[in-house]
Amino acid sequence: MQTPALLAVDWGTTALRGALLATDGTVLDELAAPHGLLSVPAGGWSTTFDELFGAWRLAHPGLPALLSGMVGSRQGWLEAPYCECPAALADLAARLAWVRPGEVAIVPGVVANDHGLHDVMRGEEVQVFGALALLGLQQADAVTLVLPGTHSKWVRVQHGRITGLATQMTGECYALFRQHSILARTLPAEDDPQAWDSNAFDAGVDCAQTTGGLLHHLFGVRTQALFGQREGAPLASYLSGLVIGEELRAQAPVPGQPLVLMGSPGLVSRYSRALARHGVAAQAVGAEATWCGLAALAGLLDLNPA
Amino acid sequence: MQTPALLAVDWGTTALRGALLATDGTVLDELAAPHGLLSVPAGGWSTTFDELFGAWRLAHPGLPALLSGMVGSRQGWLEAPYCECPAALADLAARLAWVRPGEVAIVPGVVANDHGLHDVMRGEEVQVFGALALLGLQQADAVTLVLPGTHSKWVRVQHGRITGLATQMTGECYALFRQHSILARTLPAEDDPQAWDSNAFDAGVDCAQTTGGLLHHLFGVRTQALFGQREGAPLASYLSGLVIGEELRAQAPVPGQPLVLMGSPGLVSRYSRALARHGVAAQAVGAEATWCGLAALAGLLDLNPA
Repeated sequence: MQTPALLAVDWGTTALRGALLATDGTVLDELAAPHGLLSVPAGGWSTTFDELFGAWRLAHPGLPALLSGMVGSRQGWLEAPYCECPAALADLAARLAWVRPGEVAIVPGVVANDHGLHDVMRGEEVQVFGALALLGLQQADAVTLVLPGTHSKWVRVQHGRITGLATQMTGECYALFRQHSILARTLPAEDDPQAWDSNAFDAGVDCAQTTGGLLHHLFGVRTQALFGQREGAPLASYLSGLVIGEELRAQAPVPGQPLVLMGSPGLVSRYSRALARHGVAAQAVGAEATWCGLAALAGLLDLNPA
Repeated sequence: MQTPALLAVDWGTTALRGALLATDGTVLDELAAPHGLLSVPAGGWSTTFDELFGAWRLAHPGLPALLSGMVGSRQGWLEAPYCECPAALADLAARLAWVRPGEVAIVPGVVANDHGLHDVMRGEEVQVFGALALLGLQQADAVTLVLPGTHSKWVRVQHGRITGLATQMTGECYALFRQHSILARTLPAEDDPQAWDSNAFDAGVDCAQTTGGLLHHLFGVRTQALFGQREGAPLASYLSGLVIGEELRAQAPVPGQPLVLMGSPGLVSRYSRALARHGVAAQAVGAEATWCGLAALAGLLDLNPA
């Protein structure tokens, strides 16, 4: 086995993933744990870190660690600063928040300021720089990177700098409409991947492009059940298409410009399909983007493991 | 006291209101009860009606009754048909659903068909015709009537016929975002009318007109709290402006065309303010529109109380 050069940790709201990386970014070992912002007790970050990574650190004394994600939020281990747009990888490197000087650092998030309204991310910026490296797009003119999820992130990159950022609360709102609105009465209790209906999803995506707005289109979910036009699992697929379609309507990606999707295979599949209906072809990058991004960051830092 | 000519009932999802009306629509007596679609047991509509209105009917034998609202839905007393757009008051009169022939009838709802997607209302159509009569707009070229609420209704009327209908799930979504989304953590538990912040509301209305879409603008509620720009009650007022502003963006009322608002004083006040920011002046009509509409309907029917 190669000698580990970095302990990389993606530490989010509900879980964490850690990896031992070689200098070239090769993953030598990995672990995952259900410990995140919502479950680590206040003041318990340092202990949790040592418990989870003690064996690796014992085997590789002095190995530097880089942590990205919500671990750097106000409720995290230490509140890391935000880098303002435009932000390059070197800007992240220059603003690390060291929780154990020379040894353990948290990567800053990124903030965009749109006429006084801020948008923020923590962790996705590392995935973005990792994806650019994996795809050889570090110097591309204009790339859009989309990280669908509870709070989808749309990140614009020009010549290796993050120049813009927009969060869309699509996944959270889908769950709210799906489970807590009047629409819940006409939908099955849970999504069944086997019962996914791509035609209904497409119809939802297309409806989102018509006039009337999301708050109106939602009512069409109800009337389709009322008039026996669509029900059960297909209606849930339609609702999914409606909210993802609303996100695409609002973000209006430009056909022909590079667009990169990163997320769970299920979401990437839905977004790819919806984007195709807008004439936009997407490239997909997997979870390895995080390790690639943290390795690239370590490469800028001249970290010297003992 | 004049002789009652009609027992008018507005029977909705959570409550009902009843009135004894003279031939000219004068309200002779009124009552309200917390019995609606959600609380009347299956098969219990007839009994509930007799219990609530028995005294009036004993005093005025043979008095005809017209009922509007969710009482005519599939879960109501009897499923009344929908009148298709364009629908005039005479069309409602021609399609009453009689639960007790010659004595008690339910007013049909109205359905609009927009490229195969339906929109419906039950009860609001009566308020619409009542408002047109109260304002002398029965023959106006183009009037928009807005009934804000849990599910806001936008009704277009041309020359006394309802030609279009759009429901916006604004009130329901506001409550969902307010109470069940991640935004709830940064907002006070309940709206306090004393703490209403009109400047924050205006900022929300204005934000809704910018690009990015509702699912993105919602995240701005969170970042305003994160960056200490706005919090507590003003942030709730901002969220209210955001969802009402989204409704206005989508409906795009035309400045200069008559627009009539009907609803609770609090909502009418918010919508008037938001509409004014769009350059649209609204007239307000109160709950009397329901009685006026049912009296006008009775006038077409040649109902003869004994």
